[in-house]
Amino acid sequence: MSAAVSVPAGLEGVYGAVLRALGRVEAAFDAQLKSDLPPVQRLVRHIEAYRGKMLRPQLVCLCGIAAACARGATHGGGNGHGGNVAGLDGTEYDGLVTARHITVATVCEMVHMATLVHDDVLDEADIRRKGQTVNRLRGNEIAVILGDYLFSSAYHLCSTLDSQAAALLIGACGMTLCTGELLQLHHRENFSIDEPTYFEIVERKTGSLIAVSCQLGAMQSGGSAGAAADDLAEKFRLFGLKLGVAFQIQDDLLDLTGDAAVVGKPLLRDLALGKLTLPVIHHLATASAEARGESLALLKAAGDADVESLRRLVQGLNRTGSIEHARTRAKALVEEAKALLGGLPESAPKSLLMLVADQVVARAV
Amino acid sequence: MSAAVSVPAGLEGVYGAVLRALGRVEAAFDAQLKSDLPPVQRLVRHIEAYRGKMLRPQLVCLCGIAAACARGATHGGGNGHGGNVAGLDGTEYDGLVTARHITVATVCEMVHMATLVHDDVLDEADIRRKGQTVNRLRGNEIAVILGDYLFSSAYHLCSTLDSQAAALLIGACGMTLCTGELLQLHHRENFSIDEPTYFEIVERKTGSLIAVSCQLGAMQSGGSAGAAADDLAEKFRLFGLKLGVAFQIQDDLLDLTGDAAVVGKPLLRDLALGKLTLPVIHHLATASAEARGESLALLKAAGDADVESLRRLVQGLNRTGSIEHARTRAKALVEEAKALLGGLPESAPKSLLMLVADQVVARAV
Repeated sequence: MSAAVSVPAGLEGVYGAVLRALGRVEAAFDAQLKSDLPPVQRLVRHIEAYRGKMLRPQLVCLCGIAAACARGATHGGGNGHGGNVAGLDGTEYDGLVTARHITVATVCEMVHMATLVHDDVLDEADIRRKGQTVNRLRGNEIAVILGDYLFSSAYHLCSTLDSQAAALLIGACGMTLCTGELLQLHHRENFSIDEPTYFEIVERKTGSLIAVSCQLGAMQSGGSAGAAADDLAEKFRLFGLKLGVAFQIQDDLLDLTGDAAVVGKPLLRDLALGKLTLPVIHHLATASAEARGESLALLKAAGDADVESLRRLVQGLNRTGSIEHARTRAKALVEEAKALLGGLPESAPKSLLMLVADQVVARAV
Repeated sequence: MSAAVSVPAGLEGVYGAVLRALGRVEAAFDAQLKSDLPPVQRLVRHIEAYRGKMLRPQLVCLCGIAAACARGATHGGGNGHGGNVAGLDGTEYDGLVTARHITVATVCEMVHMATLVHDDVLDEADIRRKGQTVNRLRGNEIAVILGDYLFSSAYHLCSTLDSQAAALLIGACGMTLCTGELLQLHHRENFSIDEPTYFEIVERKTGSLIAVSCQLGAMQSGGSAGAAADDLAEKFRLFGLKLGVAFQIQDDLLDLTGDAAVVGKPLLRDLALGKLTLPVIHHLATASAEARGESLALLKAAGDADVESLRRLVQGLNRTGSIEHARTRAKALVEEAKALLGGLPESAPKSLLMLVADQVVARAV
């Protein structure tokens, strides 16, 4: 759902409200990180250039709007926002995005940026979103501390909310993210890793933050507390978890089959770094002994391999249908995610959320 | 105030209470970090071995006890704990260390550990507290993520408290810490850095967390909110800030003049890393042109220098009285810190706090 996406008739109102909310998130992001110290402020500017799709803030705001509409419909339209597709114009949707949504959305984006900056140190990445990475430009030391600054800023901002509920979830999510990264590092160059281990890693390192974005969006949209509200927030959490895993699989696929100029960073990095992704795991588990041996030899040398060898590996993945396997798995996860919210009353925000979900596996960047 | 310190008569009661509190902090620390994932749990074990003096938890608990006693005395001994030196036995002091103190003390130690793990990555350090560092043993990637896990765990634990006040202060302190590190990196190998810039860096990177430890200790010790309580917490904060800066100067001095076997890590690291500490800054500002030129040449080559050249540099620092200058400055800061609490009624906790303050610049480790 970038500005380039064309939105079907009837969804422009809610789409406009989400875009306006993202503008407020950008302003809150910059205000929170602002520093009087010129060397710090220069780094902050660099981070602002990392800004991409803002998927997590989008999901916070859109899940918030969708949850408010669902509550309105469930409770007999009591708040006037339920039920009717395209029943509200943009201005009315704006009112459903509270200051708390903006805060939570900013926090989620900041945690995400912190993990990107530290990931780039781990991966020795030089390019991110078509620009040079902080570690490349300013060294690993600066990048480590800048990531810490982003984490601290996120937690500080989260603590400005009037209850600890969000901070507890964000803190726990931070811990989960890290355990996912640690598990991934633990299994680096483990060529016999299985799919359940892959999903455990991905649920933690990517799914957890997208899950908490959806959950917090729903939680901040008011409505009375209690079992029904908890149920609804839990549905949104699971929706985000499945979407997050699908998102990571799509990232893995883009690393193998994407267009570097569109993706904005070099491809085939996962292979070179010894990260086994879903297509590779499937390939090693299903290839003939001979093909497996050949791929293993290529994988073990991937750190120093030329692009030609890596391309040969990708051809091997195609021969075992492993690219297709991963693509099918990602699409199935998106369908499962959407089904979780299937029971909610129809509304424009719900329809837009379903479109955003589809986009997660349709995207080329 | 390690177990080896002999405590004067009359202070054993409060000293025992602080030691028992530190035992509770250790248990809370381990419980918060515990992971079901064996590779994560092994890393957590390694961190437990980093545990040193626990200065920050000590200060949280002792400032908490001292503030409670001060309040008791000010309010006519209403809570029964005021005024009388050695008037309470250890068990009664235990009652002044609340569950909130233990939580806050654990959070402060965890943030400190996170900064140590990331500092070791920045400094490419191999040895910490007589053991190998995480980055040395397990690589920089693991160390970066382990530091993030510690930060997240600290914020999560902090959010379990019944108000956001502590989380806000800890979040802000995390931001300040990072800006101090970023400033320090910015000025690395800047041989014309002046004393005000040095103090700005040190107040941020070391002073801020020790300040917030003392402040939160006082804040959590109950008493009615309001201007008097704020005043008291602010006094403790400034006490901690000055103590923290003195602590860092003593660390700088130990790097130059300490006994490596006692300190538990290699010496002369700051010079080799291009970190200009107070003695070096004083030396470059006061040495004759000739001596300054000689020292600058040694400093610029310090990254690859042999121990003999570094020792020659230390001799130069001694000739300009720069070691003594830093020592005097650290002692003066401790006296200023103590004076801030001078107006509090006399009590055993206050006396012990003064001893801990003196120890900051008397320590050899």
